[in-house]
Amino acid sequence: MKLLTTGMAALAVAVGVKAYNSSLDISSNATAMNSSVGNEPGRPLIHLTPNVGWMNDPNGLFYDEETSVWHTYYQFNPNDNVWGLPLYWGHASSKDLINWENHGVAIEPENDKNGAFSGSIVVDRNNTSGFFDNSTAPGQRIVALYTEQSTVGESQYAAYSLDGGYSFQYYEQNPVLDINSTQFRDPKVFWHDETERWIMTLALSQEYKIQIYTSENLKSWELQSNFSHHGILGYQYECPGLAKVPVVHDSPSNVTVSNNNLTTVDHKWVMFLSINPGAPMGGSFNEYFIGDFDGKTFTADDAATRVVDMGKDFYAMQTFSDAPNGDVIGLAWASNWDYSAYVPTEVWRSSMSLARNLTLRPNSPNPETTQLALYSEPLIDYSALSTNQSMRKTSLELSSEETVTYRLAKAAEGLLEFSLEWKVNSSALPSKHEFADMSIYLRGVEDDDEYLRLGYEVNAAAFFLDRGNSEEDFVNSNPLFTTRLAHFIEIFRVAEDGLPIYKVRGIIDRNIIELFINDGSLTSTNLFFLSEENYLGIVELSSNVDDVFTILNFEVKQLGLKDE
Amino acid sequence: MKLLTTGMAALAVAVGVKAYNSSLDISSNATAMNSSVGNEPGRPLIHLTPNVGWMNDPNGLFYDEETSVWHTYYQFNPNDNVWGLPLYWGHASSKDLINWENHGVAIEPENDKNGAFSGSIVVDRNNTSGFFDNSTAPGQRIVALYTEQSTVGESQYAAYSLDGGYSFQYYEQNPVLDINSTQFRDPKVFWHDETERWIMTLALSQEYKIQIYTSENLKSWELQSNFSHHGILGYQYECPGLAKVPVVHDSPSNVTVSNNNLTTVDHKWVMFLSINPGAPMGGSFNEYFIGDFDGKTFTADDAATRVVDMGKDFYAMQTFSDAPNGDVIGLAWASNWDYSAYVPTEVWRSSMSLARNLTLRPNSPNPETTQLALYSEPLIDYSALSTNQSMRKTSLELSSEETVTYRLAKAAEGLLEFSLEWKVNSSALPSKHEFADMSIYLRGVEDDDEYLRLGYEVNAAAFFLDRGNSEEDFVNSNPLFTTRLAHFIEIFRVAEDGLPIYKVRGIIDRNIIELFINDGSLTSTNLFFLSEENYLGIVELSSNVDDVFTILNFEVKQLGLKDE
Repeated sequence: MKLLTTGMAALAVAVGVKAYNSSLDISSNATAMNSSVGNEPGRPLIHLTPNVGWMNDPNGLFYDEETSVWHTYYQFNPNDNVWGLPLYWGHASSKDLINWENHGVAIEPENDKNGAFSGSIVVDRNNTSGFFDNSTAPGQRIVALYTEQSTVGESQYAAYSLDGGYSFQYYEQNPVLDINSTQFRDPKVFWHDETERWIMTLALSQEYKIQIYTSENLKSWELQSNFSHHGILGYQYECPGLAKVPVVHDSPSNVTVSNNNLTTVDHKWVMFLSINPGAPMGGSFNEYFIGDFDGKTFTADDAATRVVDMGKDFYAMQTFSDAPNGDVIGLAWASNWDYSAYVPTEVWRSSMSLARNLTLRPNSPNPETTQLALYSEPLIDYSALSTNQSMRKTSLELSSEETVTYRLAKAAEGLLEFSLEWKVNSSALPSKHEFADMSIYLRGVEDDDEYLRLGYEVNAAAFFLDRGNSEEDFVNSNPLFTTRLAHFIEIFRVAEDGLPIYKVRGIIDRNIIELFINDGSLTSTNLFFLSEENYLGIVELSSNVDDVFTILNFEVKQLGLKDE
Repeated sequence: MKLLTTGMAALAVAVGVKAYNSSLDISSNATAMNSSVGNEPGRPLIHLTPNVGWMNDPNGLFYDEETSVWHTYYQFNPNDNVWGLPLYWGHASSKDLINWENHGVAIEPENDKNGAFSGSIVVDRNNTSGFFDNSTAPGQRIVALYTEQSTVGESQYAAYSLDGGYSFQYYEQNPVLDINSTQFRDPKVFWHDETERWIMTLALSQEYKIQIYTSENLKSWELQSNFSHHGILGYQYECPGLAKVPVVHDSPSNVTVSNNNLTTVDHKWVMFLSINPGAPMGGSFNEYFIGDFDGKTFTADDAATRVVDMGKDFYAMQTFSDAPNGDVIGLAWASNWDYSAYVPTEVWRSSMSLARNLTLRPNSPNPETTQLALYSEPLIDYSALSTNQSMRKTSLELSSEETVTYRLAKAAEGLLEFSLEWKVNSSALPSKHEFADMSIYLRGVEDDDEYLRLGYEVNAAAFFLDRGNSEEDFVNSNPLFTTRLAHFIEIFRVAEDGLPIYKVRGIIDRNIIELFINDGSLTSTNLFFLSEENYLGIVELSSNVDDVFTILNFEVKQLGLKDE
């Protein structure tokens, strides 16, 4: 696909973002971006997209307790719908993590050959930086630490906001950290109560090192340790982040080994890491490591490599600073560098994932092991959504003779949620020759030859997704757009009759599906593309075998955004 | 696909394998299996397949220096073309690792409810076991250690052969190792010169532990250490193996960082491990860890997870005992448990990979790192092959206007080899909007709508493979048969003009393609299925962009097996 860059620039101007060779006036853009752009047929409804232009990594995520507003910044190229320099921090805010308002550019690079690359924001309540006085409420003392990428290298810059994160002043003595490297980026900062220091993790990308620095004032940083050569290495490390994640014991879990020593722990430290390219599934992905942190050094509990999201489109996850109750809430870029420049959207390109509440829970991947695993739960404020149509089915035996079909085409706008719990009786399988699937076909309302297929296959013990059934040229012609995925999933719980039960929840928003399996021990976030305005709304359940699958609970809702 | 088991059993009898409920007479089967079966249109020519029935993991690989014969055993169900009990060790031998002769069942389980599960063979030259006398040449003192799987658990058995590996006697005092576990299997044994002990690695599968035992006599084993919780864990660990792998310094490599401390090392120890299910790409895969071994404990150099083969169909790799010159030669099962029971072959199911010579070499995945990586080179004895047709092209500039087509349809039997070296001038790309591919289409001779597409895309820095373009029902209907793969590949070398050069070698044998990228720093082994007798023989080279790709060297050969 060839996009006319001139047309793009004209559109950018129309909605208030100035083109590449203009000087950007941040304050005037801030409100101008709040425009009527956003009702295009393909644009996700509850996932953050830029009004125009290109978006990648989430940056500077924080929660403003003064106003109860969530702020998200992001890598932003307002001048084109692919990545390019100069690169900015775009800014959006939300009261409910579903309805997002874009505010245009928040942070800009020093010149047009540079990029204001990824970084984070902290709330400097105690004014350790000296950037603030009493005119700024403690909960709005916003300091951004980010990477200034120039033609000679990458160094860390500070900027601060006196208006709650809508506009920024640049620290006069930038950089705050420079080690004369071209591959040194993505600072993520948090306050460590126990040692009363700021902690910064960032990537020495091509050396496969996560460096840990400490500071008392956000300006002067001291190297404490390196966490290196963990995980699948790929080409490079990006966007590391360390978080104190609560361990949840009193929630449903599939634990089969009870004599474990996990029950006394109320939190563990988790190091998040992004790899691109080099994911085994192709391109970009996120890994995590569970361990301990003493204020200087992160020590992983083991040498295992764990994956945050097994889908194709989940990268550069960052957690929010100052989330209420100490919750750890993550947001990721929902695309993949293997094909992000070519996905079939024009005005904007890319969205974020839904925000997710992250916890650790005991989990049994097999009968002999119980270990902590990351659980992700999507944060959806249902008070902001209307249910246009819904169906619920319990106790349904699947047979090979019959396809069960539900039409939820009323007011189909492409926002759909489903949850499914199923029981498997593999002893009813006549032989290992049988492809023993439970398949859910989610078909387009306008053209039911276009569909997503997902489901479970007994012999593979895997949940699968096929996003390849579309008329869209990009889907059919781009060989890097992996269409079929299969994820091993553990047993969610065992029924009274001894048979295993599994569970999945899915949220579909126009061109993105997020799957949360077994309460989120495995997630899979994937873009998909159908023909324009062919929204999913027909649901079919089928199986190739008899008497194997019992649907315990199946709910589907056709949702919409409430008028505000 | 539903296979008639009765038909299967009849066929099995016809070629000398008795059906499930018969008692197996190993000695009479040994020669009876050397039959005329094997000329079916879909059967690979130079990859080992069972004459009839089901095959999975390679077992007991060894080289007989007395006769210069390579022996391969394998998990074998002669009574059906899917996995099932009783499970046997099948046996095949080869003088050239290309022409294989099947010898039927070599080791059987104790009863029909059991399985003779995976294990290994050592040559007990010094008769440490006491199983031999002088009537057996030292190089043929064959001892097998394997897992007897019964209804109550998994324990390790010994058997020995007095006729060079064609028939086996079972040790009277089996098991040689039993820890009262149901998940304890796949012993791989080797002689450790430095400590003059036998070393056995096996998997405590569901505890994610590789246990290391030592013995003086192959009968009495002492636990020395556990190597645990490394790599992607998946559901379980299987088929571990430890090998002393030579480090090669004087071969071409892409090393960009010269001040590394790798140059003095002449070998490292490598731990191989198989995971199923749970590969990020879906289902089954092989990992490896580089480190040191002191005779009791394996210590990995780092906590990185490295992948032996990035394709979908490479599992349970084992190395040959007693390979000449201390070479480390691996062979893997070329399928994936996610769909292996459903692939469209009837008489037999599954093949092995080609044998590969394994070395470690300094490798630069990016400009700032040099580290050791596993290199794989396929072992192909060209004296056993005829070249029916070939083409070679040097210095070819790809343009978007022109598709370069070569027809190598003469005597197309489905055996094809190609090698390709290309240079990338990404500065010639007009914008990041362009899908910047070099694509090789390998099309069927009988029906050119069926094809494999593979190639390189500049923005992804990835080599891709698409095996989805087929009329075969299995390919189109099985959602776990991932059709598109993308692998990050590093620069192979830099040209005099400063531009990066990449390289791939591919061997295609009817329904399997093995890719060796940059001399084998990354390999990708994948099954593919076209309509019957539609062998690949038309080669097209194309690109979506101009002036970016220069083909430095492109060779394709249509090969055949010489008549013996």
